[in-house]
Amino acid sequence: MYNPILLPELRQMLRDEDRQGISEVLTELHPATIADFTEGLDVEETWRLLAHAPIDRQAEVFEFFPITKKIEMVDGVGRQRMSKLLEEMASDDRVDLLQRLEPDLVEELLPLVAKADRQDMRWLLSFPEDSAGSIMTTEYASLPADITVAEALTQLRHQAPDTETIYYVYVLDSERRLVGFVSLRELILAKPATMIRDLMHRDPVFARVNDDQERVAHELARYNFLAMPVVDERDRLVGIVTHDDVIDVVIQEATEDALRMGAVGALEDNHLEAPFTTVWGKRSAWLSCLFIAELMTFGAMAYFEDAIAAIVALSFFVPLCISTGGNSGSQAATLITRAMALDQVRPADWWKVIRHELVMGIALGVTLGTIAFVQAALTPQSIVGNVDRWLLAVVVSQSVTMICLWGTLVGSVLPLMFRRLGFDPGYASSPFVATLVDVTGIVIYFSIASFYLL
Amino acid sequence: MYNPILLPELRQMLRDEDRQGISEVLTELHPATIADFTEGLDVEETWRLLAHAPIDRQAEVFEFFPITKKIEMVDGVGRQRMSKLLEEMASDDRVDLLQRLEPDLVEELLPLVAKADRQDMRWLLSFPEDSAGSIMTTEYASLPADITVAEALTQLRHQAPDTETIYYVYVLDSERRLVGFVSLRELILAKPATMIRDLMHRDPVFARVNDDQERVAHELARYNFLAMPVVDERDRLVGIVTHDDVIDVVIQEATEDALRMGAVGALEDNHLEAPFTTVWGKRSAWLSCLFIAELMTFGAMAYFEDAIAAIVALSFFVPLCISTGGNSGSQAATLITRAMALDQVRPADWWKVIRHELVMGIALGVTLGTIAFVQAALTPQSIVGNVDRWLLAVVVSQSVTMICLWGTLVGSVLPLMFRRLGFDPGYASSPFVATLVDVTGIVIYFSIASFYLL
Repeated sequence: MYNPILLPELRQMLRDEDRQGISEVLTELHPATIADFTEGLDVEETWRLLAHAPIDRQAEVFEFFPITKKIEMVDGVGRQRMSKLLEEMASDDRVDLLQRLEPDLVEELLPLVAKADRQDMRWLLSFPEDSAGSIMTTEYASLPADITVAEALTQLRHQAPDTETIYYVYVLDSERRLVGFVSLRELILAKPATMIRDLMHRDPVFARVNDDQERVAHELARYNFLAMPVVDERDRLVGIVTHDDVIDVVIQEATEDALRMGAVGALEDNHLEAPFTTVWGKRSAWLSCLFIAELMTFGAMAYFEDAIAAIVALSFFVPLCISTGGNSGSQAATLITRAMALDQVRPADWWKVIRHELVMGIALGVTLGTIAFVQAALTPQSIVGNVDRWLLAVVVSQSVTMICLWGTLVGSVLPLMFRRLGFDPGYASSPFVATLVDVTGIVIYFSIASFYLL
Repeated sequence: MYNPILLPELRQMLRDEDRQGISEVLTELHPATIADFTEGLDVEETWRLLAHAPIDRQAEVFEFFPITKKIEMVDGVGRQRMSKLLEEMASDDRVDLLQRLEPDLVEELLPLVAKADRQDMRWLLSFPEDSAGSIMTTEYASLPADITVAEALTQLRHQAPDTETIYYVYVLDSERRLVGFVSLRELILAKPATMIRDLMHRDPVFARVNDDQERVAHELARYNFLAMPVVDERDRLVGIVTHDDVIDVVIQEATEDALRMGAVGALEDNHLEAPFTTVWGKRSAWLSCLFIAELMTFGAMAYFEDAIAAIVALSFFVPLCISTGGNSGSQAATLITRAMALDQVRPADWWKVIRHELVMGIALGVTLGTIAFVQAALTPQSIVGNVDRWLLAVVVSQSVTMICLWGTLVGSVLPLMFRRLGFDPGYASSPFVATLVDVTGIVIYFSIASFYLL
């Protein structure tokens, strides 16, 4: 949401050193809006602009820059200034950034950061990528159980500046173990003399530091929570995952799925801006692997060389047979993968899925087979040449029916198998599986053709 | 998250009419957990269980049922009881449900609902699907600007039972126009005598009732908001969209994208539970359309009949050429569509995109062409028959290079074109575009082959 109107004004203000004007922009607007406005500024200009705001405000704006701009900004400024900014950033956002920087740079920055912040960062950096620990923030609000609501509100006012949210407050025992939770709404509505232990919800839903971030995201979404507490192996509260991080996880997940289906691996940055050879390397690696896998179709065709030489028209139906398998397979895979994601199907249901898709595959196959029969039967005899076109129609329609059934079965069973083996079921929609179905489709088609025609 | 341990106990409690036990389950657990536990109960048992809780608690649990169970529950209970439950449900959740019920049923239910709730439902039902108005709730907290923080907190305590969130409070003028917003956190931290007008943020970010729900979702995610205010054409506040609805929109959107790529239209319910003929109808409609489109490949092959008859080995490379176009096209389309979704590319950048993808397409094409050359050159002379295998290698590698370049260009330009024409750019990843690239791939290949070999 780049705003071309404000940019010239901002540049003019920077040139004029219009302190008051810049200050106003930096305090009045939402940090996300300021970050959008600076999109057209270069790194040096952006740092000069930020310098007009207090350091905590600088950190707030910085957190809204896209990750590529953040990395450029770190490269374009002194280590000292950057370390002060890191101290002010939210605990989860700065770890996110550090994970994307060169390890050498991180080692230069960390010693300059205040000790408490440094320890927090090193600790959060130690969690595996995609774990709850890697996306949580350590800035949560907590209370003991044996105080009154009035005392709790006073404590919360003190904690507020250092916490990501005070709307959910976690109740801890003397060992910092999570024993309950209470919302600010409940605190506001309760009588001031009520004890927290009598107000709190016991047995709160929580995640463990090593839980997968997707699982945490789906749990939070399921319960409509603002935040989910994260505990360590001794049930001590160590952080919270907040609703905004969960939206990011859901979007990231959807992106990864799309990239996988689109024959692209992890290309994290803007591919138009990234170095050409890096992008070429990753894209050509994927395409080459698929190409080499697809070479099997050459072998399959060559195997049936005699049939093709005898009846040239047979080869005209090859693309049709291939795409039938591909489309029916990806349709079934998409439906089953989605049903698993929505928890409508579990790996234990495999028998129910196979039965359903077997019948469905036959029904779909007969539908397509009928269209194929009509098409083949309507083909002028001159094109099909030396073979009876009614017999050819039988061959093509039977093949299409069989291939559609086969594609549907492969597409529905593979996601279940992948899940059981511990892989992401989404891989079943990948082009590699399509390649497998291509090859088998050719074999099915020419086997049927050889049976009837040779 | 079906819990098989609790289900027999629940059934036993229902049989024993163990009021105290059931009451405990219904009050102690989170409504989402209760909804999960009742998954194994039939409609009649679930209603019997719910009857042990007060009506507002019943509504809370009901809201967490999957949509299919909600519809069954409505069918399996008296209109009178259901109308009371509707009065207690959150304003956005009940409209969501009504949209999925038969219109006749809605007309039977609505007259039984209290007037204020009925008007609210009819009004929300009037907004187009996928608009901000259709997902917002009318239960928001609001304040005038000319009161103190202390007065504001008192007012909020009164509003709390009827609002979806009190963490964001919207400041309205005497005409109910949105003039500012303040968070509960700020209210708690401010001095009690501060005036709201001095504390509030002016120019709040807002959405309009007719804005697309996806735009609202992305704005809320961008600003890390808990809720986004929605105003009508006269700038009056009419509702809010909350963070939990936004997560649902993001998940729904990702699902739609996946279904489109996977050759499936909108299949809203669990496809294993839905009526067989409905699912067959939708799935076969998609596959049949794709099949008929793919019939063009037959025409393209038939057109080059002479070339194939003369050199049978040419047909062996057809699947390879087709898949090269398909994979390179879907890779480019996926990358550009994602870059547009992340706002890294705008339709105005089309020239930059074409230049980049032209060079990239050549680089990728040459890579694949080299592999193809080696493969074709290594093929035993006996298989390729009456044609020089070095010449065949030249034909195949040139074709693969050209088709890869063509696929990359089509895949990168189409999403930009679709966006400009007002369609979803994701359609460029659809199997229909793949079919188009299949046909052109065949034409490119045989044209090059005819040029060299005939």
